[in-house]
Amino acid sequence: MSASSLNPQRTIADLRELAALTSDERGAQRVAWTPTWAKARDWYRRKLAELPVTVEQDEAGNLWATLPGASPRALIIGSHLDSVPNGGWLDGCLGVLAGLEVLRRIAGQGAPPVTVRLVDWADEEGARFGRSLFGSSAVAGRLNLEWVSRLTDTDGARLPDAVKAYGVDLMTAEQAHRQIADAGAYLEMHVEQGPVLESLGLPLGAVIGCYGIERHQLTFSGMAAHAGGFPMHLRRDAFLAAARFALEVREIAKRHGGVGTNGRVRNTPDIPTAVAGECALTLDMRHIDATRLQAMVDDACAASTRIAGEEGVDVTWRTIYQSPPQLFHPHLVDLCDKAICEVNAGASHRMPSGPGHDAIEMAWAGVPTVMLFVQSLRGLSHNKDEDTRAEHIELSVRALDRLADKVMAWLAT
Amino acid sequence: MSASSLNPQRTIADLRELAALTSDERGAQRVAWTPTWAKARDWYRRKLAELPVTVEQDEAGNLWATLPGASPRALIIGSHLDSVPNGGWLDGCLGVLAGLEVLRRIAGQGAPPVTVRLVDWADEEGARFGRSLFGSSAVAGRLNLEWVSRLTDTDGARLPDAVKAYGVDLMTAEQAHRQIADAGAYLEMHVEQGPVLESLGLPLGAVIGCYGIERHQLTFSGMAAHAGGFPMHLRRDAFLAAARFALEVREIAKRHGGVGTNGRVRNTPDIPTAVAGECALTLDMRHIDATRLQAMVDDACAASTRIAGEEGVDVTWRTIYQSPPQLFHPHLVDLCDKAICEVNAGASHRMPSGPGHDAIEMAWAGVPTVMLFVQSLRGLSHNKDEDTRAEHIELSVRALDRLADKVMAWLAT
Repeated sequence: MSASSLNPQRTIADLRELAALTSDERGAQRVAWTPTWAKARDWYRRKLAELPVTVEQDEAGNLWATLPGASPRALIIGSHLDSVPNGGWLDGCLGVLAGLEVLRRIAGQGAPPVTVRLVDWADEEGARFGRSLFGSSAVAGRLNLEWVSRLTDTDGARLPDAVKAYGVDLMTAEQAHRQIADAGAYLEMHVEQGPVLESLGLPLGAVIGCYGIERHQLTFSGMAAHAGGFPMHLRRDAFLAAARFALEVREIAKRHGGVGTNGRVRNTPDIPTAVAGECALTLDMRHIDATRLQAMVDDACAASTRIAGEEGVDVTWRTIYQSPPQLFHPHLVDLCDKAICEVNAGASHRMPSGPGHDAIEMAWAGVPTVMLFVQSLRGLSHNKDEDTRAEHIELSVRALDRLADKVMAWLAT
Repeated sequence: MSASSLNPQRTIADLRELAALTSDERGAQRVAWTPTWAKARDWYRRKLAELPVTVEQDEAGNLWATLPGASPRALIIGSHLDSVPNGGWLDGCLGVLAGLEVLRRIAGQGAPPVTVRLVDWADEEGARFGRSLFGSSAVAGRLNLEWVSRLTDTDGARLPDAVKAYGVDLMTAEQAHRQIADAGAYLEMHVEQGPVLESLGLPLGAVIGCYGIERHQLTFSGMAAHAGGFPMHLRRDAFLAAARFALEVREIAKRHGGVGTNGRVRNTPDIPTAVAGECALTLDMRHIDATRLQAMVDDACAASTRIAGEEGVDVTWRTIYQSPPQLFHPHLVDLCDKAICEVNAGASHRMPSGPGHDAIEMAWAGVPTVMLFVQSLRGLSHNKDEDTRAEHIELSVRALDRLADKVMAWLAT
């Protein structure tokens, strides 16, 4: 194998080396703005030092490696080295280290037609301060400084102080926007973190965009009552109203082809001997199509009102989070699909992403963007049992490499 | 009005005096084994001192006033002065102070045909240590010393130390059993703590017994999953299984004429962005008939297994508490019904009690027992908004007085 050929097995070796350095028996510990994360980046910088690239950390803490090409117009490949606590060995770092292997291959073949950049985004997970997509949001210019500057971790440490220790002045973080001035395209490869590709028996998928998210808290208010003293027909049980609503959410999600989840529920009083006077329930609904997502919200609203009426309780809604669907670039999705077909005997799958990714920020900022998913085993993610077959990892590196070539050719025209 | 006539308005005055002494703006604070409870008892002892009765505290902390009669055979009237924190102005103390008024009336008419005793049970509520019916259980001989001796309050104080400060040696508490050696009957008057009498437009009811209780915790185990990454058809959502089960419990309770409550629910993980991998749900079912109660448990078991199967999750049961139904004495129920009819123009209602009472312990110990309920407004209990109309309180004192006379006559034969 010559120095200029792609070596996907080297990516697996790199992943194992990184895991040995930054994981423990509970999983990956590369939480952003911690010493273990810094250790991962030091190791990564040593890998980059073997290539003819310039390396710089931007104002938001993102780490950029730049291989100059014939044109300043840039193909950006990116992902994140940071992990959740007790995380998996692939989430985020697979994309960075596959990108590294592609960069090695391109660099080995001389100056490319366009500039190629590899970015390790800072704090994709938001595990310490609860602000995910930190670095990419700063580059996109929508970090929301006022909110972010008030965040603290569970020990009470302030985000602005924590990031300063890693060379980031929060007040100037959005100056990192200049990094995408010449961006022509953004590619991100990631483990699926879901069961779809496995259920289809496919190793790879072309991601058409990320789900829009509607996250709300509903509070059903009935009447607390003694579990012994109140006959059934006189009760106004807030929990039963919430239970009916949750079952309705499943039907709504199925009907519209999206997903709906009631992940958190809390009764008041929360004791075995009392009928719940109040029940607070979170609702998280997602869809790739904004119209359908709104229809899901409308249906859920109507269902909550109807059920509340039938159960003799009240219901109120409070918005927690809203994010519109973000569609990726149609031509890049086509190229991604082709690249997958080339390495996988013609079989690909176009699919939306449920989880959010830094790619959303790039697409929002107007950079033509696409993502490539590789199969996750059992859909497991954010824990140490996350895994992907070695042959699928190798295939994913090959597909990213093909995609990079196609996109460089597209940018060069 | 002569000294020997019943004066129900004096009971209301007594209740107001006690509330002024032992309540604050949040409600009654007569939690057993606290200074405020002792203050209530000191006040009550001063009231008893005006009567020709002997007063003693037994080994379990119960306070007995005894009016000797022609026979040592005793009619016992009882209830409790202790309250939950932020409790109502009637729960428990109405029964004691109505009993005091009846004792005054009987004492005013000379020596009665049988001995009449008024008992203020110690710690009916179990508010501080979680062991309700403390004093009456000790008298019944089923305190469960091994368990009770290990109980602590939220500050870590041990029950044996706390009761010692109020003159109770836990190890000898069950010697209080001797108090019922000559017991011929036990009467207890209490606010309903439910909405049944109000919904029927009736002031008073004769209680036929107390519900049996089956209290369990069910744990549904499915698969935790990302709220975005997992399509609906691949989920095994433990919360949705629990929601279906809770709705089924309502149908089971209605079908069997009992009550069923799912008061406490907890998802794991308990976050808006995750499908619940586990859901723990408490189940409290009650019925006055043991066979129907068992049928309710059987139906709930079958429903949980069926729903778990349909949802692709597992379900396990753990018993929290079980107590069989306790029926009161049929002839005393008849006498209670008659007493109510006499004071209320012929209108009475026979009903079970959902909540537990000290009367259960007396009935369990073989003392012929009956309870008399007076209407609660809006069914409210265990909070400061608990209330009953003044005319209904007066009526309840009159009914208890008539009932005492009837039972004395029955015991004298």
